[in-house]
Amino acid sequence: MNTEELIQAVQAARHAAGQLALLTAEEKDALLQSFHDKLLEKREFLLEANRKDREKAKEYGLSEAMTERLTLTERRIEEIAEGAAQLIRLPDPCGRTLDRRTLPNGLQILRTTVPFGVIAMIYESRPNVTADAAALCLKSGNACVLRGGKEAHFTNAAMTEILHEVLREAGVEEAAVTSILDPDRRLVNELLTLRGLIDLAIPRGGAGLIRFVVEMSTVPVIETGSGVCHTYVDKAADLAKALPIVINAKTQRPSVCNAMETLLIHQDIAENWIPVLFAALREKGVELRGDERVRAIMPDVNPAEESDWSTEYGALILSVAVVDSLEAAIAHIRKYSTGHSECIVSEDREAIRTFMNQIDAACVYANASTRFTDGFEFGFGAEIGISTQKLHVRGPVGLEPLVTYKYKIFGNGQIRE
Amino acid sequence: MNTEELIQAVQAARHAAGQLALLTAEEKDALLQSFHDKLLEKREFLLEANRKDREKAKEYGLSEAMTERLTLTERRIEEIAEGAAQLIRLPDPCGRTLDRRTLPNGLQILRTTVPFGVIAMIYESRPNVTADAAALCLKSGNACVLRGGKEAHFTNAAMTEILHEVLREAGVEEAAVTSILDPDRRLVNELLTLRGLIDLAIPRGGAGLIRFVVEMSTVPVIETGSGVCHTYVDKAADLAKALPIVINAKTQRPSVCNAMETLLIHQDIAENWIPVLFAALREKGVELRGDERVRAIMPDVNPAEESDWSTEYGALILSVAVVDSLEAAIAHIRKYSTGHSECIVSEDREAIRTFMNQIDAACVYANASTRFTDGFEFGFGAEIGISTQKLHVRGPVGLEPLVTYKYKIFGNGQIRE
Repeated sequence: MNTEELIQAVQAARHAAGQLALLTAEEKDALLQSFHDKLLEKREFLLEANRKDREKAKEYGLSEAMTERLTLTERRIEEIAEGAAQLIRLPDPCGRTLDRRTLPNGLQILRTTVPFGVIAMIYESRPNVTADAAALCLKSGNACVLRGGKEAHFTNAAMTEILHEVLREAGVEEAAVTSILDPDRRLVNELLTLRGLIDLAIPRGGAGLIRFVVEMSTVPVIETGSGVCHTYVDKAADLAKALPIVINAKTQRPSVCNAMETLLIHQDIAENWIPVLFAALREKGVELRGDERVRAIMPDVNPAEESDWSTEYGALILSVAVVDSLEAAIAHIRKYSTGHSECIVSEDREAIRTFMNQIDAACVYANASTRFTDGFEFGFGAEIGISTQKLHVRGPVGLEPLVTYKYKIFGNGQIRE
Repeated sequence: MNTEELIQAVQAARHAAGQLALLTAEEKDALLQSFHDKLLEKREFLLEANRKDREKAKEYGLSEAMTERLTLTERRIEEIAEGAAQLIRLPDPCGRTLDRRTLPNGLQILRTTVPFGVIAMIYESRPNVTADAAALCLKSGNACVLRGGKEAHFTNAAMTEILHEVLREAGVEEAAVTSILDPDRRLVNELLTLRGLIDLAIPRGGAGLIRFVVEMSTVPVIETGSGVCHTYVDKAADLAKALPIVINAKTQRPSVCNAMETLLIHQDIAENWIPVLFAALREKGVELRGDERVRAIMPDVNPAEESDWSTEYGALILSVAVVDSLEAAIAHIRKYSTGHSECIVSEDREAIRTFMNQIDAACVYANASTRFTDGFEFGFGAEIGISTQKLHVRGPVGLEPLVTYKYKIFGNGQIRE
């Protein structure tokens, strides 16, 4: 695929976006229902394509974990289909009137939600993203340009074929879902600089991919970032709450971005509580790394290096520091936070208020596990990732941020004096 | 100023942002009142600094128009002060609860508006932007890093001195308003890539500056774009409304982005109306450029080149085409629109509905001049520019888009199962 062909493909997606934007909620939901049904119907077709990708996995030198991510099973296909069906139950994000005003001269101004137009999704080897992204874009009336990893080439091609069948049967232009299957990396660079043709780019994947997209792109990006999440246990904490919160935040699913990486403990409770807590964490298989004050209490704990405080382990490792005060905890978090999810455990309402106001993060918790930062947990019914930037959407990204708005202004001859 | 000094300056702004975010609405309004008063009090000091810049204007080879923009007068200083005072009357954009939900497990989730943190403003030679930007950032609780053009160096330095005095007297860290006065262009490049230190960059100026910022920046940008605005006069138009709308959209202030650049006329009304309309436009000094069908009716009109359809003249020039139908008008606008402001003049409600739905622009008008696309006209009480991107804010940018939000989550020991 050369540059001209890429531009033609994106222009076709743009043309299809015009058609998608005019579909009713019922028509969009019918597309999702048809996609759901066809995914189940064409299970064998998808599994066969996926087998081809897995045969190539060794050739590409994929790790076991990456091959695992790439793998489709009957069960996973059902889950993907279920994901599309769940979107049917959500309200249409388009066509909502956000506000309405009448100017003194009689002009009526309506602010109404509308699709972005063309959304580019850049992702890695998980083939379910192809289905998720397409379904979210269909529901929000956007055309999508999908660029997955070459490791999932055959699966992505098969998924795209199913989506095209869904669109064709409904009389919608197939370019509404456009997959860029040519593995040439230059195409991603070109895609991300098609200002005026691509309205929004969303990277989904590891920190490296996200950094690449943010640095390369000249089209607007929704950035989903990494999480170095902290929990601060205050001197006024109820330790019967603190213990399960800390264990849950670290161990319930350590590989995800809302898991805790650093624990801060007020000095007044450190000496008595740390031995109890550490025993419980070790029982769960957690490796502990402490600052000097922690190691004064527990000499067998390994020292935390400076780099530990800014590391997203994504594993059963926890760095722990003892702090003098609430203010010292806030200063530590301000220094090392990635702006994802931060928690205070305390029964002191004034301390909670101070923490909530002074911590600059997407989600600030009092007395709960940071693991709740999730679109489904928040009741959004969908999730693309957790935004750690502040423009347009912050925290869990559901369906709603996939629309923008326009002003519709109704007059009867008004001119400006 | 070397890289390290720039980073230190931005870190100081970031520290000050923490203090600003905690100010009450009353405290922020008191800062604005003090700024207003000091601007008037220190008129002479500002005029003297401005004289130094104007002396250098010839050395820099500034055009007369640019020197005019650079010039402060007593009257302009009063207007700038009045702008700051007007912000006092607007509600505080911070601390608003956008929504509130309680999860089945009892977790209470509040979504509350908060400042971005540090906003970088990159602009050209107008010294009033220094005051406007600082005032808007103070009202919205943001620290700002200001980078104006070297042509206004002395005026910007004097304005910053006044702002620092305002902050100092109120006990607010001076770095809340940080001006980068060193003219080295490398500093702008570095500023725009300080991810994690700068939360948002806003360019204010011509198309070249905006393109530069969008292409260079790795921090999120609010892009204010150019306007190739269209008016389509339908066959069902009331021509008694169409004539003043067209004349107003083109001639009331042709240099601004919401002025009309292209007029599309339905073929059924073209022959009779064009002579009347063109006579009225020529009386206002408008140079006309027409397609072949226009020139068949008015042979003395110069031909429009292909490039005319995508040119923002910013002057008393208008390109005119005759179209077959509403659909042809929509297709033309889709091809050449910059997504700013587009208008249909028609009494046919179905035609208006189709135009409103199918045109992808920040502001879509029926039967009114496009000149109304303006933050003050829309009743926002402030304006930074007109956003022609779709992320975060579209159309006139007032005070509200200068805040983001965070989730505050209150629990009593909830953990994830």
